[in-house]
Amino acid sequence: MYSVCVRDHFMIAHSFRGAVFGPAQRLHGATYVVDVEFRRPALDDDGIVVDIGRATDTLKGVLAGLNFQNLDEVPAFSGRNTTTEFLARVIFDRMCEAIGRGELGAGAGGIESARVTLHESHVAWAAYEGPVTR
Amino acid sequence: MYSVCVRDHFMIAHSFRGAVFGPAQRLHGATYVVDVEFRRPALDDDGIVVDIGRATDTLKGVLAGLNFQNLDEVPAFSGRNTTTEFLARVIFDRMCEAIGRGELGAGAGGIESARVTLHESHVAWAAYEGPVTR
Amino acid sequence: MYSVCVRDHFMIAHSFRGAVFGPAQRLHGATYVVDVEFRRPALDDDGIVVDIGRATDTLKGVLAGLNFQNLDEVPAFSGRNTTTEFLARVIFDRMCEAIGRGELGAGAGGIESARVTLHESHVAWAAYEGPVTR
Amino acid sequence: MYSVCVRDHFMIAHSFRGAVFGPAQRLHGATYVVDVEFRRPALDDDGIVVDIGRATDTLKGVLAGLNFQNLDEVPAFSGRNTTTEFLARVIFDRMCEAIGRGELGAGAGGIESARVTLHESHVAWAAYEGPVTR
Amino acid sequence: MYSVCVRDHFMIAHSFRGAVFGPAQRLHGATYVVDVEFRRPALDDDGIVVDIGRATDTLKGVLAGLNFQNLDEVPAFSGRNTTTEFLARVIFDRMCEAIGRGELGAGAGGIESARVTLHESHVAWAAYEGPVTR
Amino acid sequence: MYSVCVRDHFMIAHSFRGAVFGPAQRLHGATYVVDVEFRRPALDDDGIVVDIGRATDTLKGVLAGLNFQNLDEVPAFSGRNTTTEFLARVIFDRMCEAIGRGELGAGAGGIESARVTLHESHVAWAAYEGPVTR
Repeated sequence: MYSVCVRDHFMIAHSFRGAVFGPAQRLHGATYVVDVEFRRPALDDDGIVVDIGRATDTLKGVLAGLNFQNLDEVPAFSGRNTTTEFLARVIFDRMCEAIGRGELGAGAGGIESARVTLHESHVAWAAYEGPVTR
Repeated sequence: MYSVCVRDHFMIAHSFRGAVFGPAQRLHGATYVVDVEFRRPALDDDGIVVDIGRATDTLKGVLAGLNFQNLDEVPAFSGRNTTTEFLARVIFDRMCEAIGRGELGAGAGGIESARVTLHESHVAWAAYEGPVTR
Repeated sequence: MYSVCVRDHFMIAHSFRGAVFGPAQRLHGATYVVDVEFRRPALDDDGIVVDIGRATDTLKGVLAGLNFQNLDEVPAFSGRNTTTEFLARVIFDRMCEAIGRGELGAGAGGIESARVTLHESHVAWAAYEGPVTR
Repeated sequence: MYSVCVRDHFMIAHSFRGAVFGPAQRLHGATYVVDVEFRRPALDDDGIVVDIGRATDTLKGVLAGLNFQNLDEVPAFSGRNTTTEFLARVIFDRMCEAIGRGELGAGAGGIESARVTLHESHVAWAAYEGPVTR
Repeated sequence: MYSVCVRDHFMIAHSFRGAVFGPAQRLHGATYVVDVEFRRPALDDDGIVVDIGRATDTLKGVLAGLNFQNLDEVPAFSGRNTTTEFLARVIFDRMCEAIGRGELGAGAGGIESARVTLHESHVAWAAYEGPVTR
Repeated sequence: MYSVCVRDHFMIAHSFRGAVFGPAQRLHGATYVVDVEFRRPALDDDGIVVDIGRATDTLKGVLAGLNFQNLDEVPAFSGRNTTTEFLARVIFDRMCEAIGRGELGAGAGGIESARVTLHESHVAWAAYEGPVTR
């Protein structure tokens, strides 16, 4: 299995609901450094998993939909805790949609699965991985 | 599959037995930077894999049982080489026991597997991963 | 010159005022990974720059005064942009105050200068350094 | 499953053919920081996955066959784009050959699979993983 | 003294002349991860050292003048070894020129000095620092 | 001012004397990842600060004198606490001696100062810097 991974970041405000979150129930924020890994069993005719330039641009576009926002006020997340693991899934789903729209090029059709990792500090990260649905 | 990972470290002395270890047969030591990744297929009602605060505290407790010790004198490791990969398994087993005792909370019941990685330097690490047994 | 440095982090929400900040004028947030370096020309009688345990605890206490807050609502920062470089200075000043109160121990009297670095992402950081005033 | 991973690096020149590569069609170069992870379900009698010293030496030998070269002039790569993911596979195959020749020692016979990761910058990496064929 | 630092990277081919370089006399290449630190004694009216967005864009522009090139064929470097330390100075000088042209904004007039660091691998880096000349 | 820095590591056992060290008074150990930075105001005729190959070899030789040892039994350190900052100075002095013996080559005569940093974990490091005495 081959993989290619690209990295970018975004910065948001949010708060959590539930006693388990302790002081994180207050409005605070985070920088998330995001890694998106694309996986496929064979390379395409150019010898690549995915066009790394397009992958980087697509990730930047997906993160632009979240960056510099207060997630508590984003309708799509109403009633949900925007935890690191939850956001990893959101970005995974949006990357799959972008692949489905052809943003990563025709060659990206061979991508079978992906993994999205969000680093929230030097001592904690979360991830979501699964098959790429189109 | 969702993951959450927390990081801490511990510092120990030990020596190895066996020609394969060369100069590491002498009494020396290591800092191990430890990552524990918890995995489950769905988030709990709070939108998390595990309470990251409890996970961090539990890891700290497990490492406290090893930290600042000469592992050559720890009865539990008698006759064993406390290699990085061996210690990854020890910490994996002790984290599973802590989950079994409920230290990570009721929500942690959904954790299916885990991976423990020990970084021994900037150029080498070892890991153990497997299903979480209770 | 000898140095010792300890690391911790905190997570906050804030917004900026001024066209230069572009989309960062909206309420957003950040994780800051903080390094505090202490400098002195000679070691104390124990052979250290500072008690690393006390330094870590003192830094944790200083960061607890900022962690999980919306800095826009903190009276001490009223009318100020809480930029990364501004916050580096705030933490520098509060560490100096802690040294002045003796929180780092008597041996810390030999510390001449310090440097506080805040990493806001994998591609940007800011710092403040200067003599330790008491 | 147990893992052990060692790291080294190499520096090469190359160019790519295909419009997808944009300016990377020009002769340029890269530093690749290489991680090779070895996996096996049980430790050997010494308590290790692989002799980390031998693994490091074998990796160094494999990378010496690529280091400080213009890959456009290497006959083995004629007509191929030496992308990061392609090179990950090349190194994987050469490590398998070295295991087959016994360079990692008799104990390495238990290694079932491996993963080779090439970091080409702080924001991109590629990998190849698979069963170790002998 | 305050600092702000931004990071980017570029990838080039080159060769060196001189027995001291050993195998690096052959045509090879490198990825350089570049940190540019700006220093000034006081913050501007917005509370910043430099507009981090402009600093990032300016650095990207400077690196675009080097990226994906064979430095052996760049007239400006004729007869020079384009070592990591030499390139750190080149980037330092070009950043100073950009500041002089006003690319970092009027507020950047307060920047007194800078440091440019080029990471060539996980085990080696070089830097050039000095006063910002205009 | 130009800098070049190389990295390596060593692994030792030791214990500390003094109540300030708490549990670190017990025999334990550490991995130290070591950075040695060499500084000079102008490059030599080859365009370098120091021959990076020689610098790496010299550092490896200096660390070989400490690696895989119990520092409590090293006569040179009798009666001293081998703290991270103390060891940074030891390595600094030994690197200066190696420069004095000509191990880094004739060109290294231009090196004015150096900085030795020892990373003992992901959250703590110590350093010693000063003029290179011969």
